[in-house]
Amino acid sequence: LRPAARRSLATAKAPPSLFAPLDTFPDRHIGPDDAEAAFMLSQLGYESMDAFVNEVVPPTVRVASTELTNEVIGPLSEIELNRRAKHLGTENKPFKSYIGMGYHNAVVPPVILRNVMENPAWYTQYTPYQPEIAQGRLESLVNFQTMVMSLTSMHIANASLLDEATAAAEGMVMAYVSTGQKKKVFFVDSAVSPQTLAVLRTRAKGFGIKLAVGDASVVLTDEALRAHLCGVLVQYPDVNGSIRDFGKLAESAHEAGALVVVATDLLALTMLKPPGEWGADIVLGNSARFGVPAGYGGPHAAFFACTEKLKRKMPGRLVGRSRDTTGQMAYRLALQTREQHIRREKATSNICTSQALLANMAAMYAVYHGPSGIKRIANKVHGLTQLLKSTVERLGFVTTSDTFFDTLTLDVTGASLDASRVHAAAAAVGVNFRWIDDRRVGVTLDESVGPIDFLRIANVFTSAVGSSSLDLEDLPGPYPPAIPEHLTRTSEFLTHPVFNKHHSETEMLRYIHHLQSKDLSLVHAMTPLGSCTMKLNSTSSMIPLTWPEFGSVHPFAPQDQVKGYTQVIKELEDDLCKITGFHACSLQPNSGAAGEYTGLSVIRAFHEARGQKHRDVCLIPVSAHGTNPASAAMAGLKVVPVKTLQDGGLDLADLKAKAEKHKNNLAAFMITYPSTFGVFEAGVQDACKIIHDNGGQVYLDGANLNAQVGLTNPAVCGGDVCHLNLHKTFAIPHGGGGPGVGPICVAEHLASFVPSHPIIATGGKNAINAVSAAPFGSASILLISWAYIKMLGGQGLKDSSQIALLNANYMAHRLAPHYNLRYKNHNGRVAHELLIDLAEFDKAAGLKVTDFAKRLQDYGFHPPTCSWPISTCMLIEPTESESLEEIERFCNAMIHIRQEAEDIITGKQPKDSNLLKNAPHPLSVITVSDAEWNRPYSRQTAVYPVSGLREKKFWPTVSRVDDTYGDLNLVCDCPSVEETAHDFS
Amino acid sequence: LRPAARRSLATAKAPPSLFAPLDTFPDRHIGPDDAEAAFMLSQLGYESMDAFVNEVVPPTVRVASTELTNEVIGPLSEIELNRRAKHLGTENKPFKSYIGMGYHNAVVPPVILRNVMENPAWYTQYTPYQPEIAQGRLESLVNFQTMVMSLTSMHIANASLLDEATAAAEGMVMAYVSTGQKKKVFFVDSAVSPQTLAVLRTRAKGFGIKLAVGDASVVLTDEALRAHLCGVLVQYPDVNGSIRDFGKLAESAHEAGALVVVATDLLALTMLKPPGEWGADIVLGNSARFGVPAGYGGPHAAFFACTEKLKRKMPGRLVGRSRDTTGQMAYRLALQTREQHIRREKATSNICTSQALLANMAAMYAVYHGPSGIKRIANKVHGLTQLLKSTVERLGFVTTSDTFFDTLTLDVTGASLDASRVHAAAAAVGVNFRWIDDRRVGVTLDESVGPIDFLRIANVFTSAVGSSSLDLEDLPGPYPPAIPEHLTRTSEFLTHPVFNKHHSETEMLRYIHHLQSKDLSLVHAMTPLGSCTMKLNSTSSMIPLTWPEFGSVHPFAPQDQVKGYTQVIKELEDDLCKITGFHACSLQPNSGAAGEYTGLSVIRAFHEARGQKHRDVCLIPVSAHGTNPASAAMAGLKVVPVKTLQDGGLDLADLKAKAEKHKNNLAAFMITYPSTFGVFEAGVQDACKIIHDNGGQVYLDGANLNAQVGLTNPAVCGGDVCHLNLHKTFAIPHGGGGPGVGPICVAEHLASFVPSHPIIATGGKNAINAVSAAPFGSASILLISWAYIKMLGGQGLKDSSQIALLNANYMAHRLAPHYNLRYKNHNGRVAHELLIDLAEFDKAAGLKVTDFAKRLQDYGFHPPTCSWPISTCMLIEPTESESLEEIERFCNAMIHIRQEAEDIITGKQPKDSNLLKNAPHPLSVITVSDAEWNRPYSRQTAVYPVSGLREKKFWPTVSRVDDTYGDLNLVCDCPSVEETAHDFS
Ligand SMILES: Cc1ncc(COP(=O)(O)O)c(C=O)c1O
Ligand SMILES: Cc1ncc(COP(=O)(O)O)c(C=O)c1O
Ligand SMILES: O=C([O-])O
Repeated sequence: LRPAARRSLATAKAPPSLFAPLDTFPDRHIGPDDAEAAFMLSQLGYESMDAFVNEVVPPTVRVASTELTNEVIGPLSEIELNRRAKHLGTENKPFKSYIGMGYHNAVVPPVILRNVMENPAWYTQYTPYQPEIAQGRLESLVNFQTMVMSLTSMHIANASLLDEATAAAEGMVMAYVSTGQKKKVFFVDSAVSPQTLAVLRTRAKGFGIKLAVGDASVVLTDEALRAHLCGVLVQYPDVNGSIRDFGKLAESAHEAGALVVVATDLLALTMLKPPGEWGADIVLGNSARFGVPAGYGGPHAAFFACTEKLKRKMPGRLVGRSRDTTGQMAYRLALQTREQHIRREKATSNICTSQALLANMAAMYAVYHGPSGIKRIANKVHGLTQLLKSTVERLGFVTTSDTFFDTLTLDVTGASLDASRVHAAAAAVGVNFRWIDDRRVGVTLDESVGPIDFLRIANVFTSAVGSSSLDLEDLPGPYPPAIPEHLTRTSEFLTHPVFNKHHSETEMLRYIHHLQSKDLSLVHAMTPLGSCTMKLNSTSSMIPLTWPEFGSVHPFAPQDQVKGYTQVIKELEDDLCKITGFHACSLQPNSGAAGEYTGLSVIRAFHEARGQKHRDVCLIPVSAHGTNPASAAMAGLKVVPVKTLQDGGLDLADLKAKAEKHKNNLAAFMITYPSTFGVFEAGVQDACKIIHDNGGQVYLDGANLNAQVGLTNPAVCGGDVCHLNLHKTFAIPHGGGGPGVGPICVAEHLASFVPSHPIIATGGKNAINAVSAAPFGSASILLISWAYIKMLGGQGLKDSSQIALLNANYMAHRLAPHYNLRYKNHNGRVAHELLIDLAEFDKAAGLKVTDFAKRLQDYGFHPPTCSWPISTCMLIEPTESESLEEIERFCNAMIHIRQEAEDIITGKQPKDSNLLKNAPHPLSVITVSDAEWNRPYSRQTAVYPVSGLREKKFWPTVSRVDDTYGDLNLVCDCPSVEETAHDFS
Repeated sequence: LRPAARRSLATAKAPPSLFAPLDTFPDRHIGPDDAEAAFMLSQLGYESMDAFVNEVVPPTVRVASTELTNEVIGPLSEIELNRRAKHLGTENKPFKSYIGMGYHNAVVPPVILRNVMENPAWYTQYTPYQPEIAQGRLESLVNFQTMVMSLTSMHIANASLLDEATAAAEGMVMAYVSTGQKKKVFFVDSAVSPQTLAVLRTRAKGFGIKLAVGDASVVLTDEALRAHLCGVLVQYPDVNGSIRDFGKLAESAHEAGALVVVATDLLALTMLKPPGEWGADIVLGNSARFGVPAGYGGPHAAFFACTEKLKRKMPGRLVGRSRDTTGQMAYRLALQTREQHIRREKATSNICTSQALLANMAAMYAVYHGPSGIKRIANKVHGLTQLLKSTVERLGFVTTSDTFFDTLTLDVTGASLDASRVHAAAAAVGVNFRWIDDRRVGVTLDESVGPIDFLRIANVFTSAVGSSSLDLEDLPGPYPPAIPEHLTRTSEFLTHPVFNKHHSETEMLRYIHHLQSKDLSLVHAMTPLGSCTMKLNSTSSMIPLTWPEFGSVHPFAPQDQVKGYTQVIKELEDDLCKITGFHACSLQPNSGAAGEYTGLSVIRAFHEARGQKHRDVCLIPVSAHGTNPASAAMAGLKVVPVKTLQDGGLDLADLKAKAEKHKNNLAAFMITYPSTFGVFEAGVQDACKIIHDNGGQVYLDGANLNAQVGLTNPAVCGGDVCHLNLHKTFAIPHGGGGPGVGPICVAEHLASFVPSHPIIATGGKNAINAVSAAPFGSASILLISWAYIKMLGGQGLKDSSQIALLNANYMAHRLAPHYNLRYKNHNGRVAHELLIDLAEFDKAAGLKVTDFAKRLQDYGFHPPTCSWPISTCMLIEPTESESLEEIERFCNAMIHIRQEAEDIITGKQPKDSNLLKNAPHPLSVITVSDAEWNRPYSRQTAVYPVSGLREKKFWPTVSRVDDTYGDLNLVCDCPSVEETAHDFS
């Protein structure tokens, strides 16, 4: 019955014609081949895929089979995709941008480019919730935190946020919350980046914070303002390049009981007195210039640091040091109890997916260059800016500030010009400057500027004034150092050994590979994390990403230079609309949670536009992901929970009662479909009707869209808006905890409300303010989802969802005799994931979900999602990319562990020291002497419970990590010189 | 005294000017920073680098310090290099070639491109001489062998040769040798590729084989021929595309006592009756179309298979299965005793470095596609060729054969045209066909051909005849299958499980990474293989290699399409001449050994041109690498060994005596400098003078050039010709045993003799015949050495050699108190490597070199070169890329092992079962139960002898492999279905 050992290409049909390409992507993306799919169907008792799907997805929500076919989205082969991407790349003009505003021409060290950014062992990792198999990236993220703490001189820093603008918004809310939520005014200096201001406006709205914008010095004197002030945001150096002394401001703000939030630049801080030394409470910014390509806006890692006092209020993930059961130092995510999935509607941040991969790249950049290398870069950038100043001044241009690091703002009227004249001269030589207004032009220099670049820049100005062009020997002496004496950095930075060791390429390469060797990723084994959709991240979809045609584009480059990107964006929006059944799409939100927040803000704007501003109640099932209530709260909505029934279904009666009760104020209902319990509920359309009947809008959390594609869609289900996690369903790799993209798709009546952007036109005529710093969020990785959709085509997309359902149901079928399958539909079927309940083991033998999870590590697997959405459960999602063999291997492991548990229950093995409680078993544990091996089982049973592991096994590198110890003794930087033992052995 | 824990960039000087690039390569390439270099110098008692070098390199051979400076070779920064490579790439025109002749537009599966070809964990591996830390690539090479055996239906296949032409030459010599070296005639069918014939001509000469060329059918009848016939070479399908039945020929040749050698095509063999089924003795060809880019000629892997009877005569490396000390199956290089370093002048092949990386890529291609996928590809290629035939015939063209697989030869006179007309029409649309002669044009189709490509090809012909262009619907029905019924393949192929499993990208990715995880490479630790120069293979130098601008160029493309390559080649030749002090360079030889053979052939031609054809004696020191005498023998020279002195130096008196004795017939002297004993001999110029005085030429083996660059050079030493191993000194990665490049540089009087090529003009007016299939050998990887030289610049090149000397001498200094340093110069200094003699341990305790080597594996290191050039020694070469920390770590390991040995000598540990004899200790050995752990030492002592290993250790995956067992039970394919246990656990 089991299919033959000999597999074919997944769908090894004869090609339809001589000209049909053979490198068709569905064959490679989908794990099981036709025979294996047939086998699984037969085991489940079905004769056809259709018969099976009909019992999984409720007929009422099915879309027509013509909705998603190869006629609707024609599949491209891998080569065709590559060719088309190349072509679109050439449609982006290779201008070099000196626009600044947080985006630079970063120089990516090749060893990091190839071994981190282009390396699936790094980019396919999941968020390091399982520290025993994630010590590599945890160490790297601690390097990132340490780098930020050291350069800003702050006490603590997190492991990245989405971008500088949303980080500023987090800072604002943190100031608001930390000062008691009574003082409603947040002051923003007018020289912060415009995109930061736009995102602050959006975010302030939901919290009812009042933004005041102006010259920050008024904070010193305006008593009316001071009385209501919760915080001040300043930028250092500011968006126009000027370096101001905010020391007094900080003092004065503190006297008024307000916090000082500083947006800054890591490279500048190597030369500037760091904010931590002049009173900042919160310091944030963008780390992209540390070796992360601009990518038309992202992704890159924002950083966020604060004082000791505020640390437990800090948003985002924080990696700390702790110890394992043997006392060995081990890293892990700290203060997890702060995360929004615990705080839910009381959360003031919804950040979940952040920018781990990009934080790792920036940290590696610091490791590779070290303090002296980075200082050398800063000196060069500053020196060239000094030289540019003296050069342009000789031509009659006036720069608006005598203090600067890398940015000059030129008043072109000094040279009797209009700014457009300068921009035209720049465009003529393939260069972009910052458009400020008619009078002023901004120029920001960076690490990439060589002599030819410099002359090209300088000669834009000679050409604009009609003087003869300059050569190197014509340049004047540089303008004197433009960093005020008292704002010059005197403190050391990056003194930790890790930043002072790996400076040759060989050492760096080995460091990267050493960390990599500690981390389980998709290159090793299935990572069946429920709700996370860890599917194939194909090479073909990743390749174009690091082409300079896409990597080196500034997000604020003029539209006629970015036609390639514009086309990719348009096609992706169109395809996502086809897939969701909706009318419009915004790709701006750069995480799923950001999408939720955006979608809910759109709903609020919709109500407001119809004079229903008071609608502020949001119904959310108790089973919802923690980001849902958190996002609702951030959008200014009041969360009212809706019950679930015994069988896991939504309690429609409760929904109806609550919808009617809040009829007058009902704003929205948030629902995840299929539910977070892994079941397609039949009543979804009824639920939506109840909401609509009571004046509300339906928000569909698209985290589980992988179960829907081509079979049903959010529009048919009755939704008005949904977000998608492109880093789940649409194959953007998880990167160890980001990047992500969380676009929203909306019905026609909401289309005019999707977000705008202050610099590049996006959104409709009623657009809400921006939700991300860049107009299209993490634009460069949109290529991945675009490629994924184009290569699968309509049929492949649908097949993928079907196989995802089949794999999950086959797994349920295999595990059901051994584990308590918590929920299924009336046909006995789950959706694309399954929830198993382990409560019985706790009762019988004190075995917790964690014990099963850690034991799975010993079998070489990444554990499924644990204790969510139900604390006693595991949520298992295989995706379509896993082969039958891997699925069997996982089920066999689970069944084997079930037997190990049985031995504990029956007393064959002790309850305190056993294979599960002691799991995982790293090498350090099993290589002890015989005397020390004090376990009631053998070494082999511990580490090779099934025979396949002898040939292939991924080893945890530490034993179980102690979370409590780490949280009590919070240490979030890497070991210092003193802490590091120096032996050369 | 030891430098501070805090390191800077290797040469962290302040940049000389504001415009100086900061991404300077020497900083990254060289391991020790300035402080570390100063520390090492001080430990050795020197105040400056100059003072040190003066005591290492004899003053008599030093070149002027102005010889190699940044004025001579100006350094490019990494970014500048990238930009220049991009520019040169655009100078190669993006034509698509259907020239065939063994080179196709291969489609590289992206997952293989990124995870093998672009992955340092694969490309930086060394030849798998240490099987316990190389099971991954050994398995992959067995897959390659199995693939070849299966597709050709031969009994055994090797792990690759350099290219098809040299493989044919190996086949010819094998036929000659196997039939007793009495029968001198080797018959070559006239329809073999011209480059094959050219290389056969070169090789035949040295062996005194007489080539007869003509229609192979004369072999059936010409009795005079048959009497002297040792073998016949036919091509199947032949170079013109025709498929001929050679069954009768084979029978008849066998009757005459001759062997049948067949050049063939792996893709065609999926449809054709394989040569093994119709009597072939030796089958060979090029595997590049299995997913290896054309790269203007290479590198790619030739394959070579033969019958059971011949297997112990087969050239090249062969991987076989054996078992380890625990009985576990393990792969390793088989029949090592056959290698030329044992057989020396009795060898009939000198092949050493081959094409492991490319063989792995081809094998992975077969693993990924499986038999059905490959068959699908073959069907398509053949189908399109059928269609092309009917299409062009309708236009009046005549094809010269009705049998074909993928190649048509068109007689254009049928359409009343001259061939040039067709080529002009082709060029107009960016397409190349094969230039045969005025009448005939060749077209070869491949996997990459899509509908647009096909129409472009077809419309070259419509345009040539002036008819209107065709669209898809205008095409006629295809010509009927053109493979003769009785030559159609009926047997199955690639039935082994490994070819029938990994067909999804996820499975393939995991398979690649699983194999990778078993192999130690430069991403893990120092690989201090003496004479192999395992230095950094920088990312910057590797990146351009896989750009299509360089990857997709056919070696026989017209010169005006390859200006980028031409420029790279010219610059590299020039730079190599500057570095060696010679006048001309040939980049054609694609390994060091091939370089030796080429250089000696040039010397022979030189003598011959001067009427001294009789000069045929070659003096070679006994310490020379085995390839030296083997190459000499192949070039038809008689090898006369020269003694070495007690102190390791060349015995000048013996040299003089032998030179004078053979005065009349002296052809050449081969010398390695610094010597294979790791010492710069002062008398090298005297030795050269002796040779010149006696009418001979001096061949300098450049394997050790890394010790010379910028300090001395082969010309100053007195040589006339040298080869360089670009895969040693010039940073081409070793790829697990290839690719390599072995160019020769020659003095002015030899310049006119360097090799020609039958299709692309190379070489001087007295050029010898070709030595490789492609005009510039493995052209694409020349980019690596070009980039290496350009990025280091003159000063960086010299600094690299100086640090290589310093690292080696510091190592010698640290190890000398513990080990017997066998040779040093009169100042007590070694060159860039050191030889330690372990004979005393054998005497004292039966401990062999191997025991030390295997124990080093337990410390996480790749062992140095073992038992060469002296059987009781280890030859250790750190290179300049290793940091002081890594050097200390290695020395500490060696010293620790010395102590372990002491315990055995003094009887503290038993002589039969101890840490060295039982090494290495893989996991399988230490995870046994307490009862089974029957060693007189603890597990920790076995695997964590020094503390650093707990944090970072590379694990051998099998215990010591039994060579004898494997050679006695030679099995060289991968496990079959029957041998594979199918459990899903
Ligand atoms: C159901 C659900 N909604 C929302 C999210 C949040 O997405 P993100 O992590 O991209 O912010 C998740 C993440 O796992 C999820 O599972
Ligand atoms: C001294 C010496 N000569 C020649 C060679 C042969 O070079 P290749 O392996 O490239 O053929 C080697 C290889 O190690 C060598 O060490
Ligand atoms: O928190 C989650 O990413 O599910």
